[in-house]
Amino acid sequence: MSQEVLKKLIIEKVYRNGSVMIEEDEIIAEERIDFYLNGMKLLSVMGIAQDQDAHIVGFLMSEGVITHVEDIHSLRISDNGLSVYIDASVNEDNIQNLFKEKTLTTGCCVGVTGNVEDKIVKEFNRSTVSYNVDMLFDEVDRFYGSSALFRQSGCVHKARLVLKEGEAIEAEDVGRHNAIDKVIGKARLSHADTQDAFLIVSGRLSMEMVVKCVMHGITMVISKAAPTRLGIKTAQLHGITLIGFAREGKMNLYTHSSRVDTAHTVIQADSTSCIIEEVCVAAS
Amino acid sequence: MSQEVLKKLIIEKVYRNGSVMIEEDEIIAEERIDFYLNGMKLLSVMGIAQDQDAHIVGFLMSEGVITHVEDIHSLRISDNGLSVYIDASVNEDNIQNLFKEKTLTTGCCVGVTGNVEDKIVKEFNRSTVSYNVDMLFDEVDRFYGSSALFRQSGCVHKARLVLKEGEAIEAEDVGRHNAIDKVIGKARLSHADTQDAFLIVSGRLSMEMVVKCVMHGITMVISKAAPTRLGIKTAQLHGITLIGFAREGKMNLYTHSSRVDTAHTVIQADSTSCIIEEVCVAAS
Repeated sequence: MSQEVLKKLIIEKVYRNGSVMIEEDEIIAEERIDFYLNGMKLLSVMGIAQDQDAHIVGFLMSEGVITHVEDIHSLRISDNGLSVYIDASVNEDNIQNLFKEKTLTTGCCVGVTGNVEDKIVKEFNRSTVSYNVDMLFDEVDRFYGSSALFRQSGCVHKARLVLKEGEAIEAEDVGRHNAIDKVIGKARLSHADTQDAFLIVSGRLSMEMVVKCVMHGITMVISKAAPTRLGIKTAQLHGITLIGFAREGKMNLYTHSSRVDTAHTVIQADSTSCIIEEVCVAAS
Repeated sequence: MSQEVLKKLIIEKVYRNGSVMIEEDEIIAEERIDFYLNGMKLLSVMGIAQDQDAHIVGFLMSEGVITHVEDIHSLRISDNGLSVYIDASVNEDNIQNLFKEKTLTTGCCVGVTGNVEDKIVKEFNRSTVSYNVDMLFDEVDRFYGSSALFRQSGCVHKARLVLKEGEAIEAEDVGRHNAIDKVIGKARLSHADTQDAFLIVSGRLSMEMVVKCVMHGITMVISKAAPTRLGIKTAQLHGITLIGFAREGKMNLYTHSSRVDTAHTVIQADSTSCIIEEVCVAAS
């Protein structure tokens, strides 16, 4: 049995004129999927629980661990969809090769922040800072406007950290995690205070992005792209305001939306509790 | 000294009506950057050689390896821009934590295909297959048209493998590498012949994507996004036709473009050699 790939959620959509609509939205369920080879845990991959049997086959055949499909003796997905078991004749050298170097060769990776997440001892972010919605739309407009590299190459991710006092720090990279690491590193090296700063990014908001915010007291993260379910769950549990699809004069507020100060708000009374409840149900 | 982040290249732009323009284009230089901590190689990251000192600081502080910026004793980038050396007081437990689990926790990752690339013994792909340009534009049109998940969630990557006989296999995931692994796994599990198949993907064409094609005899890869310099170099050296920015009735041909059969072509006589020369110069 495979898990559901899309989950429904009630969210707030804020428009450029300050109006707010409560709407149902669908978010993608990104899961940690464990791959087992010949009875041993091989590795875990963050992905969606769909075609996970083909995933391990394609991965191992691309890496030269399995040479022919006939070398596969059995292939099974667990009932909850989150473990895949493959038994096969393998090339042992190429298994060693998988881990021979500690390389984050992804251009977009962190194999790592997920490990930190388990032992975060940071408290829930109780900051009562509020962000004016017009200012947020202006910052989003500036986000791409200032990137020559993005316009010229068409393939970089960008991060913009806006400090409490309004100063902005920017960085770019082909990798979405790299751009965030760079902008945080710049802030740290300049001894900037990242408490109550907010981060604008170009890439998908998955768990690692939110964990990076948690680690540095960054209260809010905004992306022009989509969040994943685990990103939303992590933001909910750590008190981070998470905003996705910030583009074309609109933003989707997923968690802790009370920090966004909208001028003429028409939010339904129970909207916030709706969001929390849905996320907690989805995440449990 | 930092490396140049953008490289100029002469490419062919093919339009929906079959016409071809030779134009200069700029591509992003994705590099393997080595991080050294207290005199020891820590890991490598694929990224652009810009702000690489801030990158290691942000990364290590997000992972809890370095707690305060004052704990950094020295920070230096090598002359070629590809190595960063940091000396700092560190939390040893959290260094171990970085590597405690073999986890590809990225949603878009392969820490791995790069390792295979060093030892690929596959021959240069000399296939003389040719692809009709109208058929290619039609396949690109179909690419997103058929994805309900993409439309609903707005955050999945997709891969479509078109076999020589015209049959197409599709898969999706939040990770661009995962989607490709899945589609190749599906092909393998169904005993499909991937020789001379072509792959359409939604994500950036970096080296790992091209290596996956090499490993499975896939002759051509098309993306609606940009290629990186290392992706182009790898495609050039292994005989893979690489097409980027396939959108809005246009495609950019970066390598081995002779396989694309355009109706009324107006290619300059020396265009192909231009491309090869430029890539080899850039890659050396």
